[in-house]
Amino acid sequence: MDERIHEHAEVLVNWSARVEDGDDVVAVVDEGAHDLAVAVGEKVGERGANLLTVYDSDEVKRAYLRAHEGDFDENPAPELAMYKNADVTLWLTGSTNTMAKADVPGEVQQAHSKAWTGIRNARLDTDWVSTLHPTRAHAQQAGMAYEEYRDFVYSAVLRDWESLAEEMAKMKTILDEGSEVRIVKEDTDITMSVEGRTAVNSCASVAYDSHNLPSGEVFTAPHATEGKVFFDVPMTYHGKRIRNVHLTFDDGEVVDFSAEVGESVLADILDTDKGARRLGELGIGMNRGIDRFTDSILFDEKMGDTVHLAVGRAYDACLPDGESGNDSAVHVDMITDVSENSRMEVDGEVVQQDGTFRWE
Amino acid sequence: MDERIHEHAEVLVNWSARVEDGDDVVAVVDEGAHDLAVAVGEKVGERGANLLTVYDSDEVKRAYLRAHEGDFDENPAPELAMYKNADVTLWLTGSTNTMAKADVPGEVQQAHSKAWTGIRNARLDTDWVSTLHPTRAHAQQAGMAYEEYRDFVYSAVLRDWESLAEEMAKMKTILDEGSEVRIVKEDTDITMSVEGRTAVNSCASVAYDSHNLPSGEVFTAPHATEGKVFFDVPMTYHGKRIRNVHLTFDDGEVVDFSAEVGESVLADILDTDKGARRLGELGIGMNRGIDRFTDSILFDEKMGDTVHLAVGRAYDACLPDGESGNDSAVHVDMITDVSENSRMEVDGEVVQQDGTFRWE
Repeated sequence: MDERIHEHAEVLVNWSARVEDGDDVVAVVDEGAHDLAVAVGEKVGERGANLLTVYDSDEVKRAYLRAHEGDFDENPAPELAMYKNADVTLWLTGSTNTMAKADVPGEVQQAHSKAWTGIRNARLDTDWVSTLHPTRAHAQQAGMAYEEYRDFVYSAVLRDWESLAEEMAKMKTILDEGSEVRIVKEDTDITMSVEGRTAVNSCASVAYDSHNLPSGEVFTAPHATEGKVFFDVPMTYHGKRIRNVHLTFDDGEVVDFSAEVGESVLADILDTDKGARRLGELGIGMNRGIDRFTDSILFDEKMGDTVHLAVGRAYDACLPDGESGNDSAVHVDMITDVSENSRMEVDGEVVQQDGTFRWE
Repeated sequence: MDERIHEHAEVLVNWSARVEDGDDVVAVVDEGAHDLAVAVGEKVGERGANLLTVYDSDEVKRAYLRAHEGDFDENPAPELAMYKNADVTLWLTGSTNTMAKADVPGEVQQAHSKAWTGIRNARLDTDWVSTLHPTRAHAQQAGMAYEEYRDFVYSAVLRDWESLAEEMAKMKTILDEGSEVRIVKEDTDITMSVEGRTAVNSCASVAYDSHNLPSGEVFTAPHATEGKVFFDVPMTYHGKRIRNVHLTFDDGEVVDFSAEVGESVLADILDTDKGARRLGELGIGMNRGIDRFTDSILFDEKMGDTVHLAVGRAYDACLPDGESGNDSAVHVDMITDVSENSRMEVDGEVVQQDGTFRWE
């Protein structure tokens, strides 16, 4: 087994999830993530924690969802109880076909997602970390050779996270002290308030309220969004392609939208619930170790010189204690390239211009 | 996908497990059982039940068990809560290497097994069914070509279970009305009491207290075992081979034992706990659709013209209401061929001689 798989598991279990003796760990294992699951099993065992592995197969889900008549029970008890009793969730993505659920109707997917809101919340209440094991399917989606893609993933994952955290702290301070963020580029002039919100310095560890490995973004939970925005970075949602999205916001809500590809998928997302038309996240990608788009949100949103906005659910870590932010059954990130002909202002001061931060 | 996989799933979900609308189903998916899991997902969806899939990987378990220092927490809460909230457990065996845990020390395996007694009991309290998806690894263990083995498995699984149940009812009546069973063959003269116990007509459905697919055995929970017995059918326990076992019982307990191969594995089993030295099961294999030994207990113990005894845990279905039978963290079946030079008596009357039942 590639030694980097063991190193990946080491970072995941010890740095990211901070697994300790006696912790109850649930590892959610994708169809193609077996090798990483084996390496994680070893690290969890070394820590003296308990391990339950869940099989997260898109092909099983597709078969189930297509056969079901569509009226899903809310939050089935075994899975809800499992997460309510777990300390840590390790989500090991590793697809064998990123299009495996392409023929599941959007409304079925949404109905199932809605019915499972309680389960999702219970999982988010654990110390959860999401990561990706490089498979041929992900390499294909990224447009890369398998070995090339593995190098790409491990370059992004096996980093000096503490150093990156220091760099990102500067951006966090600006957002925490600021009130209004404005982004201007082609077909884009959007403002949003970050007043009273706390930015997360996402350095791939639950100790920093950061839940992705790799990470390398600073994100917060904006509100009172106004204006229009163009997302020019490709994306795939539940196996369906979406390209070149335009959104227009009025009083915090999406009032107009279009997409060059996948407009009906976008419509399904926005129609999920009330919160699906409001922003849950503003994220600044600062991981320049991720050097190209690979059509995977886990990597793309962390890439240096990009900004992403998510419609749907906001993360509690960004909100004042006891306050609930935007609530939704979905959280869908969309990315825009800010490497050229663009600027980001906070309270009227330019923070980033054409991909260069003001401290650079 | 081989159409027989869909038929297998249909028998499993509808005949065996009797899954109904709203049931909470846990499917435990082995490394190589993916295709069956997909077919099961479809059937569970059709029934309108809820599905949670657990990843049951021997390679993950091996890595975990070898890395752990050995003092296991008892019944970790997520898995215990999961089974306590489940209605149905579908156990989809399908190994990619039946020797995957061969280098896990027996005492580690036993310690883990002991610590998980509560989880095992919670699982047994669901409507559970264990079945096998034919993989190349199982074909190899059976000494068969892959396609040949698939034919073997589906011949055993895709049967007219109601017809077989009628044949087996005759044996159940004899055991239920009898007091003492005696088996005589080479190196074997053993007696045991079945007084007060109820035999199970195991026709592969939870509706008959039968939990294996395929099935085709009549079994009960004997006690007061005396004498010696020779098990000449090969077996594999947790990836370790055991061959030609001799056991001697006195006052219900194993007082002497030997094995030509794997004697230390056998010793580990017998030393698990007090109940591991007493019988938990007497089973009469009556499925002549299973026409050869394949070194898999799921099939071997059902084969016509064999008898098996298990040390360890007794099944509640065989016991009077409220009475607990032999209790143990293990249940290990051992098989003896009774097709020739043998006889089984119940209360002194010959029931089977040289493989022929008295009604044949």
